[in-house]
Amino acid sequence: MKQYLQVDEWSIIEDSFDPSTQEISESIFSIGNGYMGQRANFEERYSGRSLQGSYMAGVYYPDKTRVGWWKNGYPEYFAKVLNSTNWIGIDVVIDGEPLDLANCSVKEFVRELNMKEGWLSRRFTAVLDGGRELRVEAIRFVSVKRQPIGAIRYAVTPLNFSGSITFTPYLDGDIQNKDANYEEKFWNEVEKQAYASGGYLTLKTKKLDFHVTSAMAYRLEKDSQPVQAESTFAEREKYVAGSLTAAAAAGETLTLYKYVANVTSRNYGLGQLVEAARDQLEEAVQDGFDVLKQEQAVAWAEKWKESDIVIEGDPAAQQAIRFNIFQLNQTYSGEDDRLNIGPKGFTGEKYGGSTYWDTEAYCVPFYLSTADASIARNLLIYRYKHLQKARENARKLGFTKGALYPMVTMNGEECHNEWEITFEEIHRNGAIAYAIYNYVNYTGDRAYLGQYGLEVLVEISRFWEQRASRSTAKGKYVILGVTGPNEYENNVNNNWYTNRIAAWTLEYTLEVLEELEKSEPARYAELLETLKLENEERAVWKDIIANMYYPYDEERGVFLQQDGFLDKELIPVNELSPEHLPLNQNWSWDRILRSCYIKQADVLQGLYFLGHLYDLDTKKRNFDFYEPLTVHESSLSPCLHNILACELGYKEKAYEMYLRTSRLDLDNYNNDTEDGCHITSMAGTWMSVVQGFGGLRVMQGELVLNPFIPEHWHSFSFKVMFRGARLKVNVQGETVSVVNETETPAAVRIYGQSFKLDGLSEVHTRKSEAEANV
Amino acid sequence: MKQYLQVDEWSIIEDSFDPSTQEISESIFSIGNGYMGQRANFEERYSGRSLQGSYMAGVYYPDKTRVGWWKNGYPEYFAKVLNSTNWIGIDVVIDGEPLDLANCSVKEFVRELNMKEGWLSRRFTAVLDGGRELRVEAIRFVSVKRQPIGAIRYAVTPLNFSGSITFTPYLDGDIQNKDANYEEKFWNEVEKQAYASGGYLTLKTKKLDFHVTSAMAYRLEKDSQPVQAESTFAEREKYVAGSLTAAAAAGETLTLYKYVANVTSRNYGLGQLVEAARDQLEEAVQDGFDVLKQEQAVAWAEKWKESDIVIEGDPAAQQAIRFNIFQLNQTYSGEDDRLNIGPKGFTGEKYGGSTYWDTEAYCVPFYLSTADASIARNLLIYRYKHLQKARENARKLGFTKGALYPMVTMNGEECHNEWEITFEEIHRNGAIAYAIYNYVNYTGDRAYLGQYGLEVLVEISRFWEQRASRSTAKGKYVILGVTGPNEYENNVNNNWYTNRIAAWTLEYTLEVLEELEKSEPARYAELLETLKLENEERAVWKDIIANMYYPYDEERGVFLQQDGFLDKELIPVNELSPEHLPLNQNWSWDRILRSCYIKQADVLQGLYFLGHLYDLDTKKRNFDFYEPLTVHESSLSPCLHNILACELGYKEKAYEMYLRTSRLDLDNYNNDTEDGCHITSMAGTWMSVVQGFGGLRVMQGELVLNPFIPEHWHSFSFKVMFRGARLKVNVQGETVSVVNETETPAAVRIYGQSFKLDGLSEVHTRKSEAEANV
Repeated sequence: MKQYLQVDEWSIIEDSFDPSTQEISESIFSIGNGYMGQRANFEERYSGRSLQGSYMAGVYYPDKTRVGWWKNGYPEYFAKVLNSTNWIGIDVVIDGEPLDLANCSVKEFVRELNMKEGWLSRRFTAVLDGGRELRVEAIRFVSVKRQPIGAIRYAVTPLNFSGSITFTPYLDGDIQNKDANYEEKFWNEVEKQAYASGGYLTLKTKKLDFHVTSAMAYRLEKDSQPVQAESTFAEREKYVAGSLTAAAAAGETLTLYKYVANVTSRNYGLGQLVEAARDQLEEAVQDGFDVLKQEQAVAWAEKWKESDIVIEGDPAAQQAIRFNIFQLNQTYSGEDDRLNIGPKGFTGEKYGGSTYWDTEAYCVPFYLSTADASIARNLLIYRYKHLQKARENARKLGFTKGALYPMVTMNGEECHNEWEITFEEIHRNGAIAYAIYNYVNYTGDRAYLGQYGLEVLVEISRFWEQRASRSTAKGKYVILGVTGPNEYENNVNNNWYTNRIAAWTLEYTLEVLEELEKSEPARYAELLETLKLENEERAVWKDIIANMYYPYDEERGVFLQQDGFLDKELIPVNELSPEHLPLNQNWSWDRILRSCYIKQADVLQGLYFLGHLYDLDTKKRNFDFYEPLTVHESSLSPCLHNILACELGYKEKAYEMYLRTSRLDLDNYNNDTEDGCHITSMAGTWMSVVQGFGGLRVMQGELVLNPFIPEHWHSFSFKVMFRGARLKVNVQGETVSVVNETETPAAVRIYGQSFKLDGLSEVHTRKSEAEANV
Repeated sequence: MKQYLQVDEWSIIEDSFDPSTQEISESIFSIGNGYMGQRANFEERYSGRSLQGSYMAGVYYPDKTRVGWWKNGYPEYFAKVLNSTNWIGIDVVIDGEPLDLANCSVKEFVRELNMKEGWLSRRFTAVLDGGRELRVEAIRFVSVKRQPIGAIRYAVTPLNFSGSITFTPYLDGDIQNKDANYEEKFWNEVEKQAYASGGYLTLKTKKLDFHVTSAMAYRLEKDSQPVQAESTFAEREKYVAGSLTAAAAAGETLTLYKYVANVTSRNYGLGQLVEAARDQLEEAVQDGFDVLKQEQAVAWAEKWKESDIVIEGDPAAQQAIRFNIFQLNQTYSGEDDRLNIGPKGFTGEKYGGSTYWDTEAYCVPFYLSTADASIARNLLIYRYKHLQKARENARKLGFTKGALYPMVTMNGEECHNEWEITFEEIHRNGAIAYAIYNYVNYTGDRAYLGQYGLEVLVEISRFWEQRASRSTAKGKYVILGVTGPNEYENNVNNNWYTNRIAAWTLEYTLEVLEELEKSEPARYAELLETLKLENEERAVWKDIIANMYYPYDEERGVFLQQDGFLDKELIPVNELSPEHLPLNQNWSWDRILRSCYIKQADVLQGLYFLGHLYDLDTKKRNFDFYEPLTVHESSLSPCLHNILACELGYKEKAYEMYLRTSRLDLDNYNNDTEDGCHITSMAGTWMSVVQGFGGLRVMQGELVLNPFIPEHWHSFSFKVMFRGARLKVNVQGETVSVVNETETPAAVRIYGQSFKLDGLSEVHTRKSEAEANV
């Protein structure tokens, strides 16, 4: 862990150039707009260590599954997040010497990710051979308003010499994935053309035939005026480029504007790609860089209006929470219901696939509260659309009915291949069911159930019905051979969380069926027909609910993570000598599996999801038992522990957990940020503030708040969208205020006291006061 | 399963050419001499499906471990059995037309593997373009007496035309492994030379620098007389060849003799390889094909004298058992204690590595009984030599002392990479300890213990000491997270077999220590010093022995395969609909793991190894419980069940199990013989006859026999080496005779009655008679 970034409330700032942190910075300073994204690679050539990454949402590569020994049921492919055409590249040559920060000395380097307005800038002075000094200022963004558009302004000023400067903006499709086996390349060229002032390039993937067309236009100015430049252009395999050469005296600035439009066959017919790209490019060029940049600031202001969190008295925490919100908004905009939220977003390629249960467990709550309800709904519909693939996946594993959603997917097909995860980490099915409950509970959109939700619930219930089996020995239903959320145990029996979420799914499905029968009898009848749902099935579900086995330790009064948990040696993490941590870097897999150490919340995940069904004492006993055994080596772990600790009044533990989640990437806490940022866990950080410190829940249609403020903070405030209203919650010491920024009325309960909030009104209360009024 | 081979007592015969079974035949008709081996690929080019395989014992390739997701503790490499220089190749061209059995019609095809004399022959008539018919007779062997030498006689007779025939014998090192990832090649050329009448080629592996030199010589005869031939020779990258062209009239036979010597840097210095190969080649050429072939017959007669089994009244069983003995003798000769017995021997490359616990559990008994005691001893010393690597392996997994032998190895290093096997199938350590007991019990060579055995036992005991942990919940020692012999369960707790063999190892180690203290006090003291063995350690071992947890079902009176076994749905295999079988081809891995079905003996493996410690009732209860749940999808399974069934008097079951093991490859029972033969399980087939039907055990230095003869058999007899004597046991109905073919006296107990057998004497008894005399 190395802290090298400056603290600033609205920006991430790096104020010196260090090749050893370049790949980390490339991840952190990534830009994206939900449609495409780009790591913070340099525009000019850089021969130092770098992970080049340009990503188009939804474009992936089904690479051959790589395993030692094949097991029946494995998926045919591993979906790689695909590095696509490098569209940011601008070679810069000064009097014949290429500019390369690995080969010159660099001064006054500042890189800034401006989160308020959504752009990345970089400025530095390079000292070339012979002491020639050069000032460079570059700024770029991917447009939120015009998603295919990326724009770059790249300005070079000789400081102490006059010289000839050549800019070569290019589109380069001859790129690789870092995770390619044996350095394979995944793209073929379809067509290309270079011409004066621009060019285009269309590639297609070697499998699945995704087409991506990138079109670029560029122009050169000197001191903000058009300049006559020597111009050429060139083509080679998967590459188009233009070159502009002009002279600049000391103090004169040559500025290259590069505009790019990237379009894909996901949105256009193959014959329309070039035209679509060039049309959008032309519009962007005509409007010009300043207009585009102004639009960008406006678009981000809109986003912040809905999702900002303000923390006073702790600038590092302020910066961190904004960084997390910013990256989430860069990753997923919710407009395209075929997309989802990859674990690295547009900041890296690791892990592959785009969709994990992270979406349901962590991201849905974020989007529910910070955006229009349609956004979270689209995340749910994404799974609804994959229902058929999930059925096929269950069949593949030998189930005669029901659906098993994949552990990792791009299009609904499973593309993960460790048996203990792919086949066994089936609790993901429960999270998908839970997200339906969570969405409906939050939004009150009960129509969703009849329209989409119930089909998914029934098919998941059918899976649980078969996956549970009768143990004659126990006289109960058991679920054998699973991996729970704690992936530091594999292939265990009766993981409490899995058994519980399975039975809960059955309960909820039955409840929704009953409700629908009354509220929408026609739709109910139709669904019964479509799903061929039998009364016998419901009887079995009831039997499973009544007779599910839940491992429990009478002595401690805690749910057992799995049947064999108490056979382990239970030594708290804080009694381990520090050199063992993190376990995943210091212990063999064997030792980890046999140990009691927990990677992320497992029993506690259940007590979080189903928090309304368990009393504080139960939560306390389980938290007290499991948290000391938890190593939080998943980025998804600390946030849940923060939320539970807040609920239990464990203030110090809550703040400790918050620190571990909020600056995970900014401080490179897990020493792996160079691979990309931990996007989905960023939603967990947001949850820490809103559900943890804010104590936000939704109960019986009421927004419930039980805030507590960490000692170090002066105040904090957050926005939540709730049933059409946008509420700004502010917590300062004991005082809580809620401002309804919209005309839609809302009901809130603060420290137990209920308030009606008319449109554009606000309420204030203090903890002591509210509690006295309950 | 397709039965296409002819039944013959001493030969495997295929009497027609079928491209669809070519790869199966290539495996079955393989030849080897413990030093090198060769699949039954054709000498002439063959463009049909074929798995080319030439293997040099001990020469392997440490290929990069191929996994989806790396886990700490995985080995760096996967040891590939390495396909090396193709030395059998002879291109044949008739009047410009290449002979290729995939491109002509083939008549009167007969392939024979003569097991009595150790050679492979093939004869056929090929009908070429225009109806020209050609007779080919080819025979080859790898010399048992002169291990580097392979010899081929290849005769061509035009039947209905006269023509010019070109023979191009070659050495081709430009070969691949089928299991290469991305078609990599593993060899580089070192040097080569082609010259009139021969050539040589030296290759080295791209990693580890194994050098292999192949030298060839050839000559051509017409009707057994030297013939003047047009001769050329050629070299290209990794390839040398000569060409001889001569005319033959209809009915005239052109015969090419090709002699090859293959030597490796395992046996010679790098500078000596070419000379060594050429020297040995020259001797072979001078002695000539007929002498070499005669030597081969003599050498095999020697082997058969020690290991033959005769079954009268069941020719298919007779052929099968000889085939198994033949392949075992082809695979391992016991002369080189750096070698071991790969699962495919020299018949294929699958699985990689050369050494599994198969060696200790299955092969040691075979070699103990069919060869000089030094051979089995060398197999034990092999592990002794790997003790340091086994210690390192244990350290890598986090153990502070002790040794964990690898699951698969070439040189003592682990080279298998499934966590559930590599890290968890630790019972292999127990089999290695047991083999020491077994060897000493069989041979009476107690000196081995002080010399080598005890060090291994202590280090294995130390491993068990740490791998067992205290369960507070159970108040016992438990062993968590293991995979037992039944690989259809993974990562289970308290696998009975593992717990039992662990505790047994501790018991045996303590017993050996005690014995050695008395019998060899000086050596004892020295070992205590070397091993730094503490009294505290022995105390812990005793505590573990006394307090090991053994899962047990009181109701059924059976040992439980693992803690969770009774939570499974217990449905006997015979109630499964046949389309589910074999499970490993029809069920997902997930479904297999959660099922009760057993791949191979697990609890029963323990009752076999430790048969002297359990009564018949216990064995019966466990057999009756587990056998019906066993699918025998490991080739190592049926033999053990045969042995236990014989002991329990389950005659039909015993014979059923025998059929499943004995003709496994000849009848391609598991539908995978094209990958190679199941060499190690062949030892199990031998065990079925000798320990199963013969009931052979060694108790208190006495050879114990309790034969029973399957109904279908007229008689059967086998040879066993026992403490210097070679005994021929014959069973005919109720009558058992034992002939001591050597001068060394021996003690045998038949059906409970003890006999002293002087040198060159024999005893006869009948079951009823012997039992009456007890």
